[in-house]
Amino acid sequence: MNHERLLAELSAFLRIPSVSTLPAHDADCRRAAEWVAAELRGLGGHDIRFLGSDTHPVVWGRGPEVPGAPTLLLYGHYDVQPPDPLDEWTSPPFEPALRDGRLYARGAADDKGQVFCLLKAMAESGRPPVNFRFLIEGEEEFGSQVLFDVLEREPERLRADAVLVADMAYIAPGWPAVYSTLRGICYAEITVRTAKSDLHSGEYGGAAPNAHEELCRLLTRLKTPDGKIHVPGLYAAVRPPSRAERATWRKLPFRDADFLKRRVRARALTGLKGYSVLERLWALPTFEIHGITGGFTGTGAKTVIPAEATAKVSLRLVPDQQLKAVQRQLAAAVKKLASRYVDARVEFLHGSDPAQIKLDHPIFALLDQAFKETVGRGTVPARAGGSIPVVPALAKGGAPILLTGIGLPDDRLHAPDEKLDVKQLWDGIKVFRRFYELLGTA
Amino acid sequence: MNHERLLAELSAFLRIPSVSTLPAHDADCRRAAEWVAAELRGLGGHDIRFLGSDTHPVVWGRGPEVPGAPTLLLYGHYDVQPPDPLDEWTSPPFEPALRDGRLYARGAADDKGQVFCLLKAMAESGRPPVNFRFLIEGEEEFGSQVLFDVLEREPERLRADAVLVADMAYIAPGWPAVYSTLRGICYAEITVRTAKSDLHSGEYGGAAPNAHEELCRLLTRLKTPDGKIHVPGLYAAVRPPSRAERATWRKLPFRDADFLKRRVRARALTGLKGYSVLERLWALPTFEIHGITGGFTGTGAKTVIPAEATAKVSLRLVPDQQLKAVQRQLAAAVKKLASRYVDARVEFLHGSDPAQIKLDHPIFALLDQAFKETVGRGTVPARAGGSIPVVPALAKGGAPILLTGIGLPDDRLHAPDEKLDVKQLWDGIKVFRRFYELLGTA
Repeated sequence: MNHERLLAELSAFLRIPSVSTLPAHDADCRRAAEWVAAELRGLGGHDIRFLGSDTHPVVWGRGPEVPGAPTLLLYGHYDVQPPDPLDEWTSPPFEPALRDGRLYARGAADDKGQVFCLLKAMAESGRPPVNFRFLIEGEEEFGSQVLFDVLEREPERLRADAVLVADMAYIAPGWPAVYSTLRGICYAEITVRTAKSDLHSGEYGGAAPNAHEELCRLLTRLKTPDGKIHVPGLYAAVRPPSRAERATWRKLPFRDADFLKRRVRARALTGLKGYSVLERLWALPTFEIHGITGGFTGTGAKTVIPAEATAKVSLRLVPDQQLKAVQRQLAAAVKKLASRYVDARVEFLHGSDPAQIKLDHPIFALLDQAFKETVGRGTVPARAGGSIPVVPALAKGGAPILLTGIGLPDDRLHAPDEKLDVKQLWDGIKVFRRFYELLGTA
Repeated sequence: MNHERLLAELSAFLRIPSVSTLPAHDADCRRAAEWVAAELRGLGGHDIRFLGSDTHPVVWGRGPEVPGAPTLLLYGHYDVQPPDPLDEWTSPPFEPALRDGRLYARGAADDKGQVFCLLKAMAESGRPPVNFRFLIEGEEEFGSQVLFDVLEREPERLRADAVLVADMAYIAPGWPAVYSTLRGICYAEITVRTAKSDLHSGEYGGAAPNAHEELCRLLTRLKTPDGKIHVPGLYAAVRPPSRAERATWRKLPFRDADFLKRRVRARALTGLKGYSVLERLWALPTFEIHGITGGFTGTGAKTVIPAEATAKVSLRLVPDQQLKAVQRQLAAAVKKLASRYVDARVEFLHGSDPAQIKLDHPIFALLDQAFKETVGRGTVPARAGGSIPVVPALAKGGAPILLTGIGLPDDRLHAPDEKLDVKQLWDGIKVFRRFYELLGTA
């Protein structure tokens, strides 16, 4: 492998600020899709198409046809999360920088670096007898609506013997993983309105309701300091992990103190009492506040009593919760818990059901072997706290979903200084190359 | 009076977006100061100077000298509050618009329209034997630091027989008022930090602290739904209104239902139980949240667990509270009420002590007479919920402070669609003209 050339090529991909949640970056998303399409052409791909959207198309393609060989569908995404807060990045998010064997950039691990591994593994391989299919989307960070629509209209795109989704991380350095669940997500904006318009805090302060005060109150009612989410019915559908899963988790190289100190980097862990940290991350729903708008947030001071305040929030969902039910439950809880003199409403931005994957198909043994031969350890079965909204839809094709990846737990996805260890990049290319070979000769 | 010309002149003043709290408007503040200086020159003023700041100067000047005549210091401010939320204005905030006898613009009532009355009353008068002094400042909405510094260095600027501060409103249409107290203000930013940097809610949600959640919790602990502010020691210095004051207040043309429906325009009034609405507005401290920053607040969605969140808040202070003591109390309360694993800090932006004015000087009778002769009713003694930070410093000169004004309670100061009734404008010019005459012949 020509490391220098590969790093230059990945850096070109990372330099495109393809932030799918921000309309200002529509053209950048399109550019990232074109970068992917050019790569597919370079790999001898054909039938390369942009599906479903001009600005955030799903990039579809086929590799060279090998009659009678197994078909492998590669899934990834070229879009990234917004980079802010910008001032917390050591180097700018869209100017990839190599420091201490790590490549820092938004999307380095999530998911451009991993898409890069999938494609370069093909380029580096000896053209194994595998029929490749590509579905590289551009809205994973915003609910994958375009891909959902494409798969609804053209379910034949999913015809494959397996789907390889490389958007995940090792469970710890040296410990590759294969995942049996993903949490779903329910992203919403909760808005409270207390008056017809903003009021002067001198004239009205002390006797008029304050939208931010009411919103804070509502939010603290929705989740109490013990980590309990007070959305009636929310926990009813939650299926506790099996005894066997719990036993496996206890043996994983995961220590709360390490997790707190090296990854969370806070003074304490929080969450629902009586559950292990991995259970909180993998097997319980969450409720997080992402930001609050309304009132005055500029530099300096303004003495306004805000009439409206909005919180961006999300719940992560676990098996067997369902998005639609959770949306109903959240809307009802907000109505119930808001002060009676407040207009409270919920708008749902995007969402997905949690995903469950059985790990008993024989192809999982090939992935395990590829990792074992390449990095010295096979895949441990794990769950994931994150969401890839489209995975349940991918699973509808009937092929097993290999949910894996070459990231590390400290890659700081969605946060400042996101990075990918360069060693993981090279290992990733080797692992997937070996997996393609094993699949072609199985 | 040439109404058309006067409206055109006031509109020119209102068109200058002299927002003192936003550094982007520094040049506009300077322009507004120059507008005031030009007016003073037009009135035959002399010794006109910009004091204390290039961008937000205090405009000082003297009217024509009349040896042996009483000296009247006119105070006002040319700076205005930020106009946002812009989309709630019927017409743009810095494009004055006349509708139904009202002039809509940021600053129409607070305070450019009133400064305009003070000055045009001189122009319209028959040059009464009064020695005018002018102190028109440009930082009233941001704590008046420049004027404080000027008065500290040059206390002789306050040498006068009376100070007329026209930055207030009638107590109700047809009911002019003179005010005996102003609330002080303690403006602060409360920041909580929960982790070294933002985290991905998929990877960490359920086990990591969330800065916005902690901030909301802290804010709801600082003020409970019963309206009680939980800052230890805060209420100790609060002096309850006298029996006589309470009796006066009960006779004022103020009805809770009207106040709710026409002015607050909400579904309910809030505040400390067991106190009348006027007591809550005039005689009790407040705690208001003005806005919350941190996390993700852009369009769309980002699944981040914020590591830092900041609330802009303010407390209004009443006699005999003191700013310095309240700052200490708030800082201590924040430390005490924040979760133990959170870094919480308070930064103080600006502030002022509450003001108390005795209404027993004979000059108050002249003001009362001016109103009575001009608009048919004299001044009722009242208190004010708002703050004019510099009034306590103005009072140090020893001259009585005539705290009055020609605004109406529904002028929507600091809010969208701020307005001044044109009738109040003409009445204001007549009232102050008559007051100058009465003072000159007293």
